[in-house]
This record gives sequence, C-alpha cells and structure tokens, in this order.
Amino acid sequence: MRAAVMRNGAIEVGEVPEPVPGPGEVLVRTLACGICGSDLHVLQHTHRFAADSGGVGGGIDPGRDLVMGHEFCAEVLDYGPGSGRRLAPGTRVCSMPVLFRPPQALSVGYSHDFPGGYGERMVLSEALLLPVPDGLSTEHAALTEPMAVGLHAVRKAGLAPDDVPLVIGCGPVGLAVIAALKLAGAAPVIAADFSPARRRLAERIGADIVIDPAAHSPYDSWRDAARASSQGLRAAVNPLSGERVLPPGVFFECVGVPGVIDQMMVGAERGCRFVIVGVCMEQDSIRPLLAVSKELNLQFVLAYTAEEFAETLGHIAAGRLPVEPLITGKVGVAGVAGAFADLRNPERHAKILVEPWHA
Amino acid sequence: MRAAVMRNGAIEVGEVPEPVPGPGEVLVRTLACGICGSDLHVLQHTHRFAADSGGVGGGIDPGRDLVMGHEFCAEVLDYGPGSGRRLAPGTRVCSMPVLFRPPQALSVGYSHDFPGGYGERMVLSEALLLPVPDGLSTEHAALTEPMAVGLHAVRKAGLAPDDVPLVIGCGPVGLAVIAALKLAGAAPVIAADFSPARRRLAERIGADIVIDPAAHSPYDSWRDAARASSQGLRAAVNPLSGERVLPPGVFFECVGVPGVIDQMMVGAERGCRFVIVGVCMEQDSIRPLLAVSKELNLQFVLAYTAEEFAETLGHIAAGRLPVEPLITGKVGVAGVAGAFADLRNPERHAKILVEPWHA
Repeated sequence: MRAAVMRNGAIEVGEVPEPVPGPGEVLVRTLACGICGSDLHVLQHTHRFAADSGGVGGGIDPGRDLVMGHEFCAEVLDYGPGSGRRLAPGTRVCSMPVLFRPPQALSVGYSHDFPGGYGERMVLSEALLLPVPDGLSTEHAALTEPMAVGLHAVRKAGLAPDDVPLVIGCGPVGLAVIAALKLAGAAPVIAADFSPARRRLAERIGADIVIDPAAHSPYDSWRDAARASSQGLRAAVNPLSGERVLPPGVFFECVGVPGVIDQMMVGAERGCRFVIVGVCMEQDSIRPLLAVSKELNLQFVLAYTAEEFAETLGHIAAGRLPVEPLITGKVGVAGVAGAFADLRNPERHAKILVEPWHA
Repeated sequence: MRAAVMRNGAIEVGEVPEPVPGPGEVLVRTLACGICGSDLHVLQHTHRFAADSGGVGGGIDPGRDLVMGHEFCAEVLDYGPGSGRRLAPGTRVCSMPVLFRPPQALSVGYSHDFPGGYGERMVLSEALLLPVPDGLSTEHAALTEPMAVGLHAVRKAGLAPDDVPLVIGCGPVGLAVIAALKLAGAAPVIAADFSPARRRLAERIGADIVIDPAAHSPYDSWRDAARASSQGLRAAVNPLSGERVLPPGVFFECVGVPGVIDQMMVGAERGCRFVIVGVCMEQDSIRPLLAVSKELNLQFVLAYTAEEFAETLGHIAAGRLPVEPLITGKVGVAGVAGAFADLRNPERHAKILVEPWHA
C-alpha cells in the first residue's frame, strides 16, 4: 500500500507491505492523522531517540523503513482471527496508538513491523477501539491524541483551586494544555510564546492572559496575575515582610528545547511546581542550587492513560475541548514531507492533518 | 570575641565584634556547633553561592569577614530590650538558624552582620528558642539542625506504605535521611556510598541494605529489594508481560555533585520520585527525554519548617533518632580550618563539632 515513509533520514512517498491483522486485531483505513512534533523530532534525531526514550520510540533502526503517525481517526475494514467484531465495518474509530502483542505493548507510529497513520491502512488492537460519536467530525476526532496529552499533563499537576498556571510555549502541546486547564476550571490561565500566530491561537483556545516574552517577562506577568487572583481567594500575608503570599505557581514547560527549564527556575517563586510536557531531545543544563533554594518540584509527564484518552474523545465530542483552531492544514501522502518542513515555522502552522487516501 | 572566621577565602582564628542583642533577641554562649557540608561549599564557591541561592547564603560578600556555623546548641547569657526573658540565663537552647529582624529573616551563620556558631557568642531570636530537654547531651542537641534536614526531606517525599526508598550518598545528609526514613517506618531502607566508613555509619544509623556502588548497581539492588518487599504487600502484575509491578521508588539524592541526578534517571523505574537533598553548587546536566519517558518526579528540598525542627529535637531527646554515630570529632576554634580539610575525606569523618570555648 502507499504511505509517507521515513527512509534514509527523509520522508518520501513509498510502497510498504500491506498490514495484516493478527489475533485480536482489526484492519482499519486511515481517515486523518495529525503530524506530531515528536515525529519531527524522530526525523531529526533518530539515533538519540532510539537510545534514550525507553518505551515510546525506543528501538528505532535508522536503516529501516518507518511509517509514523499516531494521532488518527480511522474506519473499520476487517478483523483478524479471534476478534469480537464488536464494531461493524464502516464504523469510525479512535484508538490509543498502542498495539498489544503480548507480552509487548508496541507503539503505533514508531514500529518497523506495522505502519502508523501516514499510510493508507493500519492494524489496531480491537480492545482499544473507541467509536467516534455521531456528529463529531473525523478531523476533530483525530485530535483526541494530542488533546489527551494536555489532559494528562493537567491531571498530573494535581491542581488546587488557588493554583495559577503559566504555560510556556503555545505549540500544539501548549495549546492542548491551555484547553485542558480551562476545562479543569483554572483561572486565570497565562500563556507565553514568541510567535504572534501562536499567541492568537492561545487566545482562541481559551488562555486568559497571553504574553509575548520579547516584550514582557512571563514570570513577572504571572506574578502580577497571581497577586491579583489571590486577592479574593485568600489573604495570606508574610508576617515579616507584610507582602502578600502568592498562590502556588504551576508552570507547564511546552517548548522542549535546552535552557527553558533553567529559565523557568530563575523566574519561579519558592514552592513552584513544573510540569515538563515538552520533549527536549538534547542534553539540558540546570542549576540544582537554584531549584533547591526554591524547593521546586519537576514532574516530567508522558502520554496519558486509557481512561484519559477516552475521556478526551468525549470532551471533544461534547464541545468542551475546542480543537478547531489547531487545524491549520491538510495534506495527502505526497504532501507529508513538505508539511514536516512547514511545521518548523510557527507562524504558518499548528496541526497539519494527513489524509492518506489523498494523492 | 574570638571566632573561626572566613577571611580572604580561608578559615582562620580571629577577633570579631562582640554581638549585641537587639529587640526580641537573646545573647547566647555557643556550646557546640556542627560543621555542615554547606559551609565547605561556601568556602569553596563563595561567588557562586552569593549569586544563585536566593534566600539562604545569598548576598555573601567574599571581601568581608564571615563567622559561619548554623548547627548549634548554646546557653542563654542575657536578653536584649523588649524580650520576654522566658528562659533563665544558663538554660541550654537550640534554635533554627534564623534571626528575625523585620522585615527580614536572616540566616545565622551566613550573615556578615552577626556571627554564627564558630564564634564564642551569638545573638538569636528569643521567639525561636527551644530549651534542650534535661538528660539530652549538648553534643546530641547540636545535631538537631542536620537531622531536621533529613526529617523534612522524608516529609516532602510523602511516603506511601509500599514505597521503597533508596538513599544515594551516606554523608551527614544521607545519614539524616536514613534515620528519618526508619523513624517514618520505611522498610527496607537501601543506601549506597563508595566509602566503607560511611557504609558502616549507614548500617549503624539503621539502613537495612547497604550497597557499595563499585561492586553492585544500587539500582539493581533496589529492584531486587523492591521485588522482594512487594511480595507480601501487593500482588500487582503487568497483565501483558506477567512481570510483577514494582512498588514506587523514592530515591534520595544526598551527594550534590554533577552527574548524580542523570545517573539516577538512568537507574530509575517509571514513576519514580527523586528527592534532591544534596546541594550541587555547579551546573548540572540532565537528559529530559529520559525523565519524560519514565514520568519521573524531582522534588528539590531545602531546610525544614519550625515545627519539623522542634519535632526533631524531641525525637533526638527520646532516642528515636540515633545521632551518636555521626559525631566523629570535636575541635576548638583553632581546629576549625583543619576540620574543614579533614571533612573532605569521607573515610575519616562524618560530623565534627566545634566547641568555641576551646582554644
């Protein structure tokens, strides 16, 4: 079948073996599949990704074909042996990008043995299929995976009512975090990005205060907002200095490039929690003394649980997680290489969907 | 008065101004004061400490005299104006090393304006004084401060009954953590240090399993112990692999040199929490991808609360926190410079007490 395949360090249109559903597996036709920043990372840093990442993306062999794509909506075609055939052919489905082949749970989109969503067809685990609710568009359903990343990150933050969140970086990960924060009732949500286009998206997705770090320190803006927000909620005052005690900061790192964590450590107040959602593929440098003196907490997060994934699909269907602003382009198989290049410019795109049934 | 003073980047015996108690302050005679690793750090890295550390140790001027010492037991001599004179002169006291001079809370032992415990006399805040219970030796009472660091670190870890702790580094900080873990009922407590002398101390202070990292990986040893410990407690098994799910790891970093956090990240299982107690003064390097793929949590900790400090003194007095093994030497003022040098050899010393009333 036809697919956009990573071959010799580049994305090209190619023929790959037709996937065959095994026991408990289902054959699906890919309807739409988002391009994830992780895929850009893998293309750029294949060797490092293979060496460091443990489960997801581990074991990638730069010398073998790879059909990536793990943010998809698909249509049931047929079942493998021993399946329950719970959903009729033609049903639209989402699934966590995991294929159970006991004793292994393999990553759809990062395996050499079966294709991800940049190809015409995939095999999935029947047990993980979630039918797409009627009335929900295929494009929006395909955003379940990246939006679940935001939901999971916010869950791991364990938000208290007086926490004031700051989102550093408004790419697709940051936007998903902003949407999940609004869903969780956080207010105000403060977000920062150097790109004007991404700041506009952050506003559309629900951020209350959007900062251009070239013009204002996001950390000073956070302090101002936290001070204002704490006035009604609690009147804790430092008995020595007479200064108002700021509510705890929860800072989401959604950039994933070296130096950002250190910068956040400089900007943070004592007791701040960081949720590290951006995936930095390079070695990074921190100053532990800075973190110690402020008693910072760093929670690194990855992916989501099966429950969070299903819940996210429900929230999108109910209109509680806005996803429309994220979709900035669509391409066929032949357009994937160009889309990978375009995505490096934050002014042009947030999420590009691949429709592998297109040329 | 006489003191061991940091002057021109070295410790020497010198004359410093007699401290005068201000409002709400008390004049005390220093009976014993432990030498802390932080003091060794400050002597070695004065410039960096001054620049980075925020509250504690911030603002140190390498060109001015400094009388360090913040782990002390002292005797009340006299009171400043407006004091409650709650404790009679002659009473032995401990105190958090903080002097309230509103709007500031200043660090005793890291201020140029008043001396720490390496001098004959100090001024303290009356409000923070804790009388030393009868029957508790002055030497043991002086260990309240470093033991409180361990208690606080273990509190911040938020231990669950099935957590299995691993302590990396068995200097005074690691030993305090081990003692606090045993006090909290953790079992087994696993500890690792390259030094045979420190491994012996770890055993004496209560560690259940003590590892020489030159001979065995502490992380493999942790896995073995965690697997064994989980057998009775819970039988969670990964349904795909059939492998037993290990209880969550809680790793205490008590070394404070670059590279240790990265090494712990390599060794950790998914979901592990790190409590960073060691104070690394240098730039450190981490691989965020490694931390993301395992969803690690890093809690940096500093010092303790007033309640934890008081509680620690009570535990020492009641014999619930063993401190005797830590004391490996005593010196007078003239011996402080040599003690700083000796403490660099882990085979020779853990905690040296300064008795400034000695020559």
